[in-house]
This record gives sequence, structure tokens and C-alpha cells, in this order.
Amino acid sequence: MIIIGERINATRKNIREAIERKDAKFIQQEALNQVNSGADLLDVNCGMDIKSESDNMEWLVKTVQEAVNVPLVIDSPSPEVIERGLKTYRNLNSSAGCRLMVNSITADKERADKILPLVKKYDAGVVALTMDEAGMPKTASERVVLAGKILKLSEQYGVRTENIYFDPLVRPISTEPEQVKEFLSAVKEIKISLGAKTVCGLSNVSFGLPERRLLNSTFLAMAIYAGLDAAIIDPTDSQMVLVLRASEALLAEDEYCMKYIAACRNKS
Amino acid sequence: MIIIGERINATRKNIREAIERKDAKFIQQEALNQVNSGADLLDVNCGMDIKSESDNMEWLVKTVQEAVNVPLVIDSPSPEVIERGLKTYRNLNSSAGCRLMVNSITADKERADKILPLVKKYDAGVVALTMDEAGMPKTASERVVLAGKILKLSEQYGVRTENIYFDPLVRPISTEPEQVKEFLSAVKEIKISLGAKTVCGLSNVSFGLPERRLLNSTFLAMAIYAGLDAAIIDPTDSQMVLVLRASEALLAEDEYCMKYIAACRNKS
Repeated sequence: MIIIGERINATRKNIREAIERKDAKFIQQEALNQVNSGADLLDVNCGMDIKSESDNMEWLVKTVQEAVNVPLVIDSPSPEVIERGLKTYRNLNSSAGCRLMVNSITADKERADKILPLVKKYDAGVVALTMDEAGMPKTASERVVLAGKILKLSEQYGVRTENIYFDPLVRPISTEPEQVKEFLSAVKEIKISLGAKTVCGLSNVSFGLPERRLLNSTFLAMAIYAGLDAAIIDPTDSQMVLVLRASEALLAEDEYCMKYIAACRNKS
Repeated sequence: MIIIGERINATRKNIREAIERKDAKFIQQEALNQVNSGADLLDVNCGMDIKSESDNMEWLVKTVQEAVNVPLVIDSPSPEVIERGLKTYRNLNSSAGCRLMVNSITADKERADKILPLVKKYDAGVVALTMDEAGMPKTASERVVLAGKILKLSEQYGVRTENIYFDPLVRPISTEPEQVKEFLSAVKEIKISLGAKTVCGLSNVSFGLPERRLLNSTFLAMAIYAGLDAAIIDPTDSQMVLVLRASEALLAEDEYCMKYIAACRNKS
């Protein structure tokens, strides 16, 4: 199970402000905290200010890489900003099996045609959202069809299946109660019928409901059982990490429950 | 999802002592607390003292039924004690869909031949452990084969499939890490290939590990996703009930997330 740390994201006010004032120390502490809490990769997102986003991405990638030695997930809606991030990124001599990633493409061909060549050029992985110009799919099979389309596009650019992480996109149960079942079926199906990996963010699922951390972590347990390969989470949330480690231990993916026991120690 | 309250069990010291001194008030408070916390049925077990167990069961059933209006699960290794409990039990005018149950039979024919006629006579449900004289099964398919054997035995006595709750028996991951996966596959398979229901206790899974409540509740989320129909838990453990309600809400088994929201309120 791969943990992608989500905290360095300019939608969070203190991160946005730290990027604006180029507060390297603050950003680097966020990076360190996440890696020390178990993050295998760190997502870096510097917001949507068209003027400054590209420069900010260069600064952010350099700043984070000065502090930690894990691969990054270059996260932007803009292909130009993604390219700037990839260009700035310094390759690691890491053997942990994780690699530099891009967040994200969809089945929208226009966007994919811009980003997939970059993914190939920089030998990166990529998060692929199972949606297209027409919007978000409803059923598991619609999600699998979209994933299949993305696989075909990726093949055309020489991007290998093993470097693609499909996000079947979870939606809030408060407004769309049937969607979690469809999401979980999609996680299983993408693995079985396409032989591909899956990733997701968690917090959407609990939108509008109380005890969101508990709901999110319960959802995570189910998703891991369905076969989820990577989760975009806040690794400093010890409840979330404990449930993730517990899930691995329960499914015999944690020899002697070592990671789980370590997570219990970190909590207390 | 059916919640069977597990607290009135003479393996717990304070319950054993309350039964010994015939402290009806203490037992009734335990019963009330569990029902107020959401228990749909209450398990009643009065220990293994051969001399007094039968009398104790009669007293226990009467005492609990004076306090609460939910079906009971008559829990004893002894067919005689089970019969005494069933005989004592006063039928409810309940329409909640739950019924008086017996805990438990196995695929051991000698035991089943004594208990199944009682199950039939008293129109009860029964917990059926997927094991036999030879011991506990290792794989999911061994569990399903044993469940099939039990179904055949039950048919001979006219006990309907819908009244049987198979417990595929979970074992500690600390010593048998692969067993949770086998358990979860068995839950799915018993539903798919036999059209039967499943139940389980939870606490075994975490034996020997830290943060047992977290591990147990994470396991519960996975089991509910696998299709578990009933859980034998401590309903006064609010973390466990919250995860159970969260699981129902995530799987669209809780309209408008009403039960989940109520459980959140009860917690705070």
C-alpha cells in the first residue's frame, strides 16, 4: 500500500501563504512531518494562479527535495506547470519501488495528449481519473470503460500500464449513497480485467456528514480490501494511518504485523 | 446488519458473579445498556458449571426478558441447557425480523442431531460454526464445504436456510496471518454459493496485538463489505458501533445515513 501525502496543497490556506512568501522552512517541515509519518510519496500542488504557478512549482519542487528523499507527485491542472515541475525534479537513487508521478490525466484526449508525452519523457507514473469531458461516471462498468480508454491512449505514448494509477473517483454518500459500491466494484474490476493499479483520495466520501475521519478511514479499510494500491491521505492523521496499517495486517500484507505495531507506537 | 450483544456472558467475571448471587438488577442493567446502544438481540451465556448451568439459564432468560423486549441468543455448549433456555423463553410480538436463536451447532453430527430438533421445535435461528470434530478449517473452500454439510443436516430436521447464521470462524492474525482473507472469502462464498447468512465474533482476530479495538473495527468494516449479516459485539463500545454504522452508510444500507448520524450523536 502506497501512501501519498496530500498536505502540500495550495488549497490549504497556510500552504498557499507559505508558497506566496517563499517560506521554505514551513514547507520543508510539512514535507518532513509527512515522510516521518510514513508517506511514500508527496503530492505537491501550488494552486491555480496562472501568472505565478509555474515559478511556484519550480520553487516548491526544489524546496521539498532539499528536505526529503521521496518521490514527488507533480499536481497541477496545467500541462505547462506539470512540465516545469518534472523538469525541476531531481531523480532519486531510491529503490523503494515508487517513482515520480504526475497528477493527473483523464480520458479527455486533448489533455491526455499534452500530458502523456511528458509522463513518458520523464519516465514518471501518472494518476488517471476515470472521467472525461462528459463528466463523472455513475456505474463501476462506466469507470472501467473509461480506464480502458485511458490505457489505450497511454499505450500510444509508450506509457506502461504498471505506471498508471486509476482513480475511480469516490463521491459523497450524503448525496449519492450508491456510489461507494460502484467505486469499490471499479477498484476490483480495474485490477481483474485491466491488470492495472488504483489510487484514490478519501475525504470526498464523507462530505456533509459528522465524524468524517471515522467515515473516511472505514471507507479506506473497504477500499484496501477491494484491492486499492495507493491512497492520497494526510499521513499525519494517526487514525487514518492506523486503519491503513491495520488493513494491511489483516490482509497478510504486513509481515509479523511490524508496520502496524510501529504505527501503534507512533500514535502513543 | 444485525447486532448481537455479547456482554451477558459468564466468561466475564462480573457477569459470572452476578449470576451466582442472582443479582437481577445488575444483569438487567447490562441488558438495557446493550439494547439502548443498538443491540438487536442479546446473547445469554451462563457458564459451564455442570451442576447449576441449567437452573442459571432459566433464571437468566427470565431475568433478561423482564427488562428488555429483544430476542435472545441461547448460548451454551450443553444441549440440555439450550433446551432449558428455549423452554423458558417467552415469545415476543416483535416484527423486527429477528428471532430467538441458539448458539451454536457445528458440522459435528452428534451435536447437531441433539440441537437441530430443538431449533425446529422452538422455531429458532441458529449460529452454525464451520468446523467439525476434526477441528478448524484452513481455507475458505473448506469452510464452505462444512457449511454445506450443516445445511444438509439442517434440512433433515426441517430447519430453513434463512434461519441459519454461519460463523466462518476468524483466527488471530498474529499467529495465522492468512486466515482473515480466507474468512472474508468464505463470507462471500457462503452467500453466493449457498444463499445463506453469516455471523461472527470479532475479538479473536486481534489477539496478541496492540490497539485491539481499532483492529477489530477495521476487520468489521471489511467483513460487512464482504457481506456479513450479523456481528456478535459489545454494542456499548461506541467505536465499534460507529464503524458498523459507517459501514452500512457507505454501502447504502442506511437511508439518509440516519442510523450513522444517530450513532454519532450517541457517541458525543
